[in-house]
Amino acid sequence: MREIGVGLLGLGNVGAGVVRLLADNEKAIEARLGAKLVIKAAAVRDVDRERRVDVDPAILTTDVDGISARDDIEIVCELIGGVTKARDLVLGAIAKRKQIVTANKALLAVHGDEIYAAAERAGVDIYYEAAVCGGIPIIRTLREGLASDRIESIAGIVNGTSNFIVTAMAKGGREFSEVLAEAQEQGYAEADPTLDIGGGDAAHKLAILAMLSFDCRVDLDKIYVEGIESLEAIDYQMAKDFGFVIKPLALGRRYPEGIDLRVHPTMIPASWLLADVPDTKNALYVNSYALGASMYYGAGAGMMPTAMSVVSDLIEVARNICAGVTGSKPMRSQQSLESREILPIEKVETRYYLRFSVEDRPGVLGQLTTVLGAHGISISELLQRGERGPNAQVSVIAFTHKTQEGRLRAALSAIDSTALTSAPTMTIRLAS
Amino acid sequence: MREIGVGLLGLGNVGAGVVRLLADNEKAIEARLGAKLVIKAAAVRDVDRERRVDVDPAILTTDVDGISARDDIEIVCELIGGVTKARDLVLGAIAKRKQIVTANKALLAVHGDEIYAAAERAGVDIYYEAAVCGGIPIIRTLREGLASDRIESIAGIVNGTSNFIVTAMAKGGREFSEVLAEAQEQGYAEADPTLDIGGGDAAHKLAILAMLSFDCRVDLDKIYVEGIESLEAIDYQMAKDFGFVIKPLALGRRYPEGIDLRVHPTMIPASWLLADVPDTKNALYVNSYALGASMYYGAGAGMMPTAMSVVSDLIEVARNICAGVTGSKPMRSQQSLESREILPIEKVETRYYLRFSVEDRPGVLGQLTTVLGAHGISISELLQRGERGPNAQVSVIAFTHKTQEGRLRAALSAIDSTALTSAPTMTIRLAS
Repeated sequence: MREIGVGLLGLGNVGAGVVRLLADNEKAIEARLGAKLVIKAAAVRDVDRERRVDVDPAILTTDVDGISARDDIEIVCELIGGVTKARDLVLGAIAKRKQIVTANKALLAVHGDEIYAAAERAGVDIYYEAAVCGGIPIIRTLREGLASDRIESIAGIVNGTSNFIVTAMAKGGREFSEVLAEAQEQGYAEADPTLDIGGGDAAHKLAILAMLSFDCRVDLDKIYVEGIESLEAIDYQMAKDFGFVIKPLALGRRYPEGIDLRVHPTMIPASWLLADVPDTKNALYVNSYALGASMYYGAGAGMMPTAMSVVSDLIEVARNICAGVTGSKPMRSQQSLESREILPIEKVETRYYLRFSVEDRPGVLGQLTTVLGAHGISISELLQRGERGPNAQVSVIAFTHKTQEGRLRAALSAIDSTALTSAPTMTIRLAS
Repeated sequence: MREIGVGLLGLGNVGAGVVRLLADNEKAIEARLGAKLVIKAAAVRDVDRERRVDVDPAILTTDVDGISARDDIEIVCELIGGVTKARDLVLGAIAKRKQIVTANKALLAVHGDEIYAAAERAGVDIYYEAAVCGGIPIIRTLREGLASDRIESIAGIVNGTSNFIVTAMAKGGREFSEVLAEAQEQGYAEADPTLDIGGGDAAHKLAILAMLSFDCRVDLDKIYVEGIESLEAIDYQMAKDFGFVIKPLALGRRYPEGIDLRVHPTMIPASWLLADVPDTKNALYVNSYALGASMYYGAGAGMMPTAMSVVSDLIEVARNICAGVTGSKPMRSQQSLESREILPIEKVETRYYLRFSVEDRPGVLGQLTTVLGAHGISISELLQRGERGPNAQVSVIAFTHKTQEGRLRAALSAIDSTALTSAPTMTIRLAS
């Protein structure tokens, strides 16, 4: 049986999962592939460190740059993360005509154009199922399953840490800092959780999803990003009272004038399937011309789910190697991608939840609604909440009809610059 | 740009969708494929019949056998349905070394082994994404997305007609015949709905899903099948009262002693994502070793969703043609499939909902539970429902702990053969 040599760059959590899965499912993988995947080398920082998996010490090396030089390695599997060294290694491997499998969303979101183009020129495969939504085969779905369709919009829960936190906060009673601490304790949030809770990680994934969904190049910096840090317990309670659930969404939509790409906490109707995606789970909802609504749900992170996607990619690349057709079926040919404008957030039109912190005195509601009305923003529902009393601060909750964000921002800036509100107004976008 | 000729066998609902989608998304498909898919001929019964789509009359022909003989056709797309003529046509096309795309689940469930083997010998592709769950790319997901994983169990809502009916009945108050009539009126059920509501269609799909999930050959006749016809309004009400939802499920599970394959209405916890799959929508829930739980949701039927899967298959086969590798990546190599026993229903162990129709007189409950106890069946919850009065019939609802079906059947046979019950006891399996 033909052997396909694999070189791992990095042997952390996901790398250990890859080694374990290849061993545990060895027979089934050989039967399905008709060939044998063999890890010939794994580049690590410290060969003596204890591993989460049994691995032959002879394959460990600290010479990360040497992996691509080896003739017995046909697929280079990049699992070190980061964008600078990873870029050099991947481009170096492509130059040596190695096939690439990577789980590195940041690398592809930042340097994707350069890497895809290099792979296309060299005629090598680059597969990256594990980069988005961990174990959910969403890259294949967009690339092949829906290859004949025209995707109109996508909405995804693509960051497990954020979803864990909003799921816990929706249960009520606790504030963000407490829930974040719990997530860190349970291993669902990193010591520095910025990239996850701030939306940066979701933006990386959205950049990749948008490229495949809308056949366009995506400039990561133009994606509007807002995290979940500033939402308070009252916002989750209000969402519930009005029949909504708050979820950390990555949103993409095709418009004639450009692509709308955003990452932010979003209020969605409690009846939506996405509203039922709990804890660290991920899901992508897709709306397309021919298929209509579809959804893909599963584990978005974790050692074995992510390794599952990596090894499925290794199998597919190995099949291409055996058939002698690597590089012949790029995910999206770089020439076929269009350059499309990403709409600035000010031009986006949607509905909003607004929470004003105001003093409970006569006339406040009237003044608020007057300013909103003067900016052409109309209210669909309004609720005042809080105890009446001298100097009591109360929350006024308003849901707007569809309005342009630029207009809303102007109104809120006018309101928050007066003594009308005692804190900046909380804004949460509704799914539209 | 290279042209790939396609011949359609049949131009009904799905065929019209294929013509429309190829036209509507022509540019995007060409850009993604790097080639042009052209329908060269469409075999129909009556060339003069009015069509749901604009089609060049010159491509219409009644010579269905002649399609495979044409040199300008590289892919034969079988959309006529049925198993006898379709088998001859597909085997004939394979013999002429045409690539095959089909949406025909019955054909593959009944003659799959023969057809896959013929395709493998001839070195041609056979793709059938549209055969299961319409537009949901579930075949690709099992074949490639989860290629590295070991699937332990699957649970699918794979028949839209049945799901429409149970969704409507769960809303309450109406009996089966009334809801079926409504489904027929709205075009969601056929004039003869037997194959859909009786579970036969779901069994066809389960045979295909099981082959891909468990790497085994599946004898369709050994799948246990039960329809939704005999469920009454009270069963849906009781399910709700106890926190369940009834769904028409196709179930598959791998056991050391064999594969458990069943199609029947199933009570599942209301908190499960599958419980929220409404109306005619389909979904497949998969539990696998590395990924854990995942779910795939969307339109399981309909002209455009089904056509979407067919055209995505055409694109993939066309890519293989362009790369010169047709037949090199079979879904599952026939040699790699194992022959595994399908467990007889009597050996299945699960929990049960039982509805006894009994006379309301002293001692009945005691007699019921005594017989169940004598057969080793223990009850987790019990409810008597109905008005007390002379000769009044009441319903006794019981949920059992896990028990073997053979044992349960013996107990119910003992009970129903006495004067204890006035009608056969209704049995609904719980998901386990």
